[in-house]
Amino acid sequence: MMQPSSLIDRDLKHIWHPCSQMKDYEIFRPLEVIAAKGSYIELQHGKKIIDAISSWWCKSLGHNHPRLKHALVQQMEKFEHVILANTTNETIVRLSERLCRLTKSLNKVFYASEGSSAIEIAMKMSLHARYIQGDHKRNIFIALENGYHGETLGALSISDIGIYRSPYTATLLETYFISPIPYVHSMHDDLWRNCDAYWEKIEKKLDAYAQTTTAVIVEPIVQGAGGMKLYSQDFLKRLRVWADHHNVHLIADEIMTGIGRTGKMLACDHAGIEPDFLCLSKGLTSGWLPLSAVLTKQSLFDLFYDDYETGKSFLHSHTYSGNALAASIAVEVLNIVEEEHLCLRAEEIGLLMYEYLKEIARETNKLKNIRQMGAIVAAELVGNQPNRRLGYDVYRKAVELGALLRPLGNTIYWLPPLTIDLATLHELKSMTEVAIQSVF
Amino acid sequence: MMQPSSLIDRDLKHIWHPCSQMKDYEIFRPLEVIAAKGSYIELQHGKKIIDAISSWWCKSLGHNHPRLKHALVQQMEKFEHVILANTTNETIVRLSERLCRLTKSLNKVFYASEGSSAIEIAMKMSLHARYIQGDHKRNIFIALENGYHGETLGALSISDIGIYRSPYTATLLETYFISPIPYVHSMHDDLWRNCDAYWEKIEKKLDAYAQTTTAVIVEPIVQGAGGMKLYSQDFLKRLRVWADHHNVHLIADEIMTGIGRTGKMLACDHAGIEPDFLCLSKGLTSGWLPLSAVLTKQSLFDLFYDDYETGKSFLHSHTYSGNALAASIAVEVLNIVEEEHLCLRAEEIGLLMYEYLKEIARETNKLKNIRQMGAIVAAELVGNQPNRRLGYDVYRKAVELGALLRPLGNTIYWLPPLTIDLATLHELKSMTEVAIQSVF
Repeated sequence: MMQPSSLIDRDLKHIWHPCSQMKDYEIFRPLEVIAAKGSYIELQHGKKIIDAISSWWCKSLGHNHPRLKHALVQQMEKFEHVILANTTNETIVRLSERLCRLTKSLNKVFYASEGSSAIEIAMKMSLHARYIQGDHKRNIFIALENGYHGETLGALSISDIGIYRSPYTATLLETYFISPIPYVHSMHDDLWRNCDAYWEKIEKKLDAYAQTTTAVIVEPIVQGAGGMKLYSQDFLKRLRVWADHHNVHLIADEIMTGIGRTGKMLACDHAGIEPDFLCLSKGLTSGWLPLSAVLTKQSLFDLFYDDYETGKSFLHSHTYSGNALAASIAVEVLNIVEEEHLCLRAEEIGLLMYEYLKEIARETNKLKNIRQMGAIVAAELVGNQPNRRLGYDVYRKAVELGALLRPLGNTIYWLPPLTIDLATLHELKSMTEVAIQSVF
Repeated sequence: MMQPSSLIDRDLKHIWHPCSQMKDYEIFRPLEVIAAKGSYIELQHGKKIIDAISSWWCKSLGHNHPRLKHALVQQMEKFEHVILANTTNETIVRLSERLCRLTKSLNKVFYASEGSSAIEIAMKMSLHARYIQGDHKRNIFIALENGYHGETLGALSISDIGIYRSPYTATLLETYFISPIPYVHSMHDDLWRNCDAYWEKIEKKLDAYAQTTTAVIVEPIVQGAGGMKLYSQDFLKRLRVWADHHNVHLIADEIMTGIGRTGKMLACDHAGIEPDFLCLSKGLTSGWLPLSAVLTKQSLFDLFYDDYETGKSFLHSHTYSGNALAASIAVEVLNIVEEEHLCLRAEEIGLLMYEYLKEIARETNKLKNIRQMGAIVAAELVGNQPNRRLGYDVYRKAVELGALLRPLGNTIYWLPPLTIDLATLHELKSMTEVAIQSVF
């Protein structure tokens, strides 16, 4: 009789995993998940590993949160999903009201599922606003060097990470990438408060695009996929002023940073600025269900508001726009973040993680450029050798030890659930240290 | 004391509805949904309306299906979502195996949430395959006149519906749109079996693009957003032969047609062809949760399969790729479609709807070009008057009578849950007839 295939063999026969070289799975086989709870993922044979990256930065309240489960079941008793064109419901209205309280100026919400769709929506709303105004020369975007905004072709056009974009360059939009970025290690660097020296150089180059740019897009304060790099809040402030001055829209991609991750509800709050378009996803449902949102302001909304025959409608749609199940969870996430003061907690655990990472650096001598913002810490592995993927080796070793680290190249980072307990953080520290030691 | 705002006022204060001119809501206010079950959506004050369009063509098993609810709860007891890079689980493996049984040649599945993301993934895989092969001249797409593939900028580039794309033309990719399309009314038209006369004209024009095209994309058999237009299976067959002959990939966008809607599991099955990339969404979770999938074949997958250092990885990702809650529902949807023979039922109710629509045409004299494929029927309203949105007026009247029709311009169509009962269909017929009569 034939042996039944293992689940892993069955997986590799059919699944093309995201963001993977599938050949890597020959030696680093997929982990078989059977359950997840709090900050832990349970694998086959009872092994539990710490989800140190919140499953791609989304599970801000951890796995299997009982209140989120309850919210989902409650919504399911009513209905799961109804087309949002021409309908409304209590859940989506409550969510929209909550989201519009995040800022003073952004009072309109458009929904999608994927983070990259939110980016594309903001891009299209900006372009469409110019079209309506008859301003046909503004059709390029400005973004940041080393920035990342998603993988659909529009979002990829404004992303500056070579390995993601180079196969598609012939099909991407023209984008100007700002450099140099005034990176910081934490909010205690001088540059955090004042980036004068950088700004002088940046502004000169920017001004060349002032008349042809529709929008500048940023990941505020933290560049995620670019390696968890932090930059000056003063830079963000000045960019906001520059954009206003030149009638350029500012799009804030808070897909990763939004809803408490950086110690404020929005990373923009660090600079005291508000964008013209705000994109949210990931933490919005704490990694339960795909949901994204684009917030914008009345004056932009009003451009599109006219008789149908004028052709000004924003005729964008996604089937699941405003999905009620996802929205029901998002409402409860916002309740929990507020009630449990999770912005404060993000900063508290962030400071502890910062200390831990510095300790690891001292013990191992293998980490440099340690940085922290809210519940995000990161550092680079030093001493890379040709033909060795150090970060990848640390990843494999850490999983063996009990932590899902998944470094970005040679950048080791922690971005755990905001609700992670301190004992687990301490475990994570030990595992990371041993994993780093072991690869040298 | 201030009167509390109605839910509708609160909605209009903050929600930018998809695919809407928001000013329209001044006279046609959003419908307040409080529950949904089977083919009915329940509104405030107990009014029930028939979901004649399956909530944007997705709720193929109707609302609130008890088996889907059960599947979701079962999955939730284990875990809701874990990053799919480097992990696997029983649910996603079962779903992948099921999807790979839909065709003989497509044995690899890549997951996303939005339908448009699935399109972008197929586009990128095609472009990336050329890049890996060093074939740098193939970077344009061919699509069908009047086709629709979604709203992100890549997907919009290959869509040919002016009102959706015209504000963004400066930023869209070069695409050649095939015309004329050999449209049919049903599979009983001669053109269905043989489109020789059309093909001769089409092929001549196509050949000019044979060396520069990476992929041709189609909605097989049924163009949805373009007005529920049906075309010859012979045309699809010839396009497949042409693409093979010229080393052009064929992408089948079965986001709307897939999983039984046209009376076959895939609309491609009508032509007995298989694409190189197959995009699914909508019916895949019967409109519960955002989930999309791109299937492709071993030879394309193999191009990307190499040592990491060669840089051939397809580094595309979406946070919720393979979301376990959505996947758990999709598995159960596939079970139900199979067990309840819903492909057969799609054809059965389709034929009945076809008869009903012809009856309405006879009674009202206001419908022309009546057509049917599986559980889709459509027809155009005749006698349009300048400055009147006839279809829109029918929509409003039908809602009043108890049916959510939402025509596409002046195209009236029914695309109900495959599980709709015959009494409800009959009600739908009467309401549609009265609605049409009433606007003339």
